[in-house]
Amino acid sequence: MRIALLGGTGDIGQGLALRWAYDTDHEILVGSRDPDRAREKVEEYLTELDSRGVEASVKGFANEMAADRARVVVLAVPPYHVDDTVSSVADSLSEGDILVSPATGIKRDDEGFHYHRPGAGSVTRLVADAAPEGVHVVGAFHNLPAGRLADLDADLGIDTLVVGDDPDATDMVSRLAEEIEGLRALNAGGIANAPEIEALTPLLINVASNNDGMHDLGVRFR
Amino acid sequence: MRIALLGGTGDIGQGLALRWAYDTDHEILVGSRDPDRAREKVEEYLTELDSRGVEASVKGFANEMAADRARVVVLAVPPYHVDDTVSSVADSLSEGDILVSPATGIKRDDEGFHYHRPGAGSVTRLVADAAPEGVHVVGAFHNLPAGRLADLDADLGIDTLVVGDDPDATDMVSRLAEEIEGLRALNAGGIANAPEIEALTPLLINVASNNDGMHDLGVRFR
Repeated sequence: MRIALLGGTGDIGQGLALRWAYDTDHEILVGSRDPDRAREKVEEYLTELDSRGVEASVKGFANEMAADRARVVVLAVPPYHVDDTVSSVADSLSEGDILVSPATGIKRDDEGFHYHRPGAGSVTRLVADAAPEGVHVVGAFHNLPAGRLADLDADLGIDTLVVGDDPDATDMVSRLAEEIEGLRALNAGGIANAPEIEALTPLLINVASNNDGMHDLGVRFR
Repeated sequence: MRIALLGGTGDIGQGLALRWAYDTDHEILVGSRDPDRAREKVEEYLTELDSRGVEASVKGFANEMAADRARVVVLAVPPYHVDDTVSSVADSLSEGDILVSPATGIKRDDEGFHYHRPGAGSVTRLVADAAPEGVHVVGAFHNLPAGRLADLDADLGIDTLVVGDDPDATDMVSRLAEEIEGLRALNAGGIANAPEIEALTPLLINVASNNDGMHDLGVRFR
C-alpha cells in the first residue's frame, strides 16, 4: 500500500517513515511543501535503511503529489499548519482516502506543558471539519516518542490510540500501526474522544521533565 | 503514620485502604459522613485482611474525626462532594497536613467518556483553592483501576502521577504511593499540570470499553 507522510521531513514523520520502511513493504511517499527538501530527507532515510540491509521504497514529493498518489495520508505537520495543509491537498484526495491526524496542540508556561485545545474541540476534529467529503479522518500516533520512533535500535513496547468515525478506516489505520514492531494500536472510540488523547502528549513531556532518567516517553495501557 | 481516607467506603478508598493496610504498617482511618457506615466497611476490610493473615490497624470514623487524627488526608470522594467535604473537615486540619486529591470530573455522552474540567481548572486545583491556609494539597491516584486496587491478588505494575506545589508534601505522597506493591509514583510537576492527569481517567474508560479483554486499566509510562 502507498502511505503518504505530509510533513514527512519532521520528527514524527521521520519516525513513521523509517519504521514503516523498515518493518513493512509499503511504499512510503514523503511529502513536504518543498519537494527538494523531501528528496533530501529521503536520501537520509534510505542511507539509514541501506546501512541495515533494507531496500525500501521511499520517495520524496511535494505534499500535493504525495497525497495524490496514496490511499492513506498522514498529516505529520505542526497543529498550526494542519488547516492550510488540508486545504492545499484537498483536490488531491479522493473519496475513500484516509486522512490520519497525529498532531496535538501544546502550549508551555512556567509550570510545564499544557493541552491547548482548539476551538473545534480537538486537532483531530479540526482535520475532520476541514477534510473534503468522502475522505475518512482517523486520529492516531498522537502520543509517540519521536526520537525513539526514529531510532530503529530502540524498543518501543508502547501503545497508540486510534479514534475515528468510520470503522473500516479506523481498522485500516490500526493495522498499519501494528505493522510497526513494538507498537500496539488500541481503539479509543470516535473522534469525539480525541481531546483526552491529545492531552496525553503534554503530560508525557511533563513526566519526562520531572523524573530523572525518563525521556522520550510513551505509554502502555495495562 | 496515620492516613485518613475520607470517603474511604467508596471504590478508590477501599482499594487504597486495603493496599496500605496489606503492604505497610500505617494506621488507616476510614472516614465517611456516616461513622456507622465507615465501621461496617472497616469490618469487611479487616475480614479480608485477616483471611490473608494480616493484622492491620484500620478503623472507621466520621470524616471530621478521621481528618483530625491524620497527617495525610485523602479526599476519596466524588468530585461533586469535594468542596463540601473540604469545608466539613477544614477545622480538623492543621498547618502542615497534607490533603491528597484523587478525584476527576467525568461526563458521559453517546460517544464515550470525557473530561469535565471544573471552572477552577482541575479538581486538584479546586481542592487547593478550598483548603485552609498552611495545608498542602497534592494530586495523586487519579488514574488507578479501583477494582484491581481492591483485589489484593491482582498485580498492578502501573504508575500514579503526583502533582503538588510543595516539594516535601509531593515527596511524602510519592513515598506513600510507592509503598503499595506494583505502584510507581511519577512526579508530573505543579498543580497547574493536573488537568492533563485528570483527563487521562475518562480515556482509560474509553480504551477499556472499545477493546475486547481490556478492563479496569491503568497506565505505565515507558
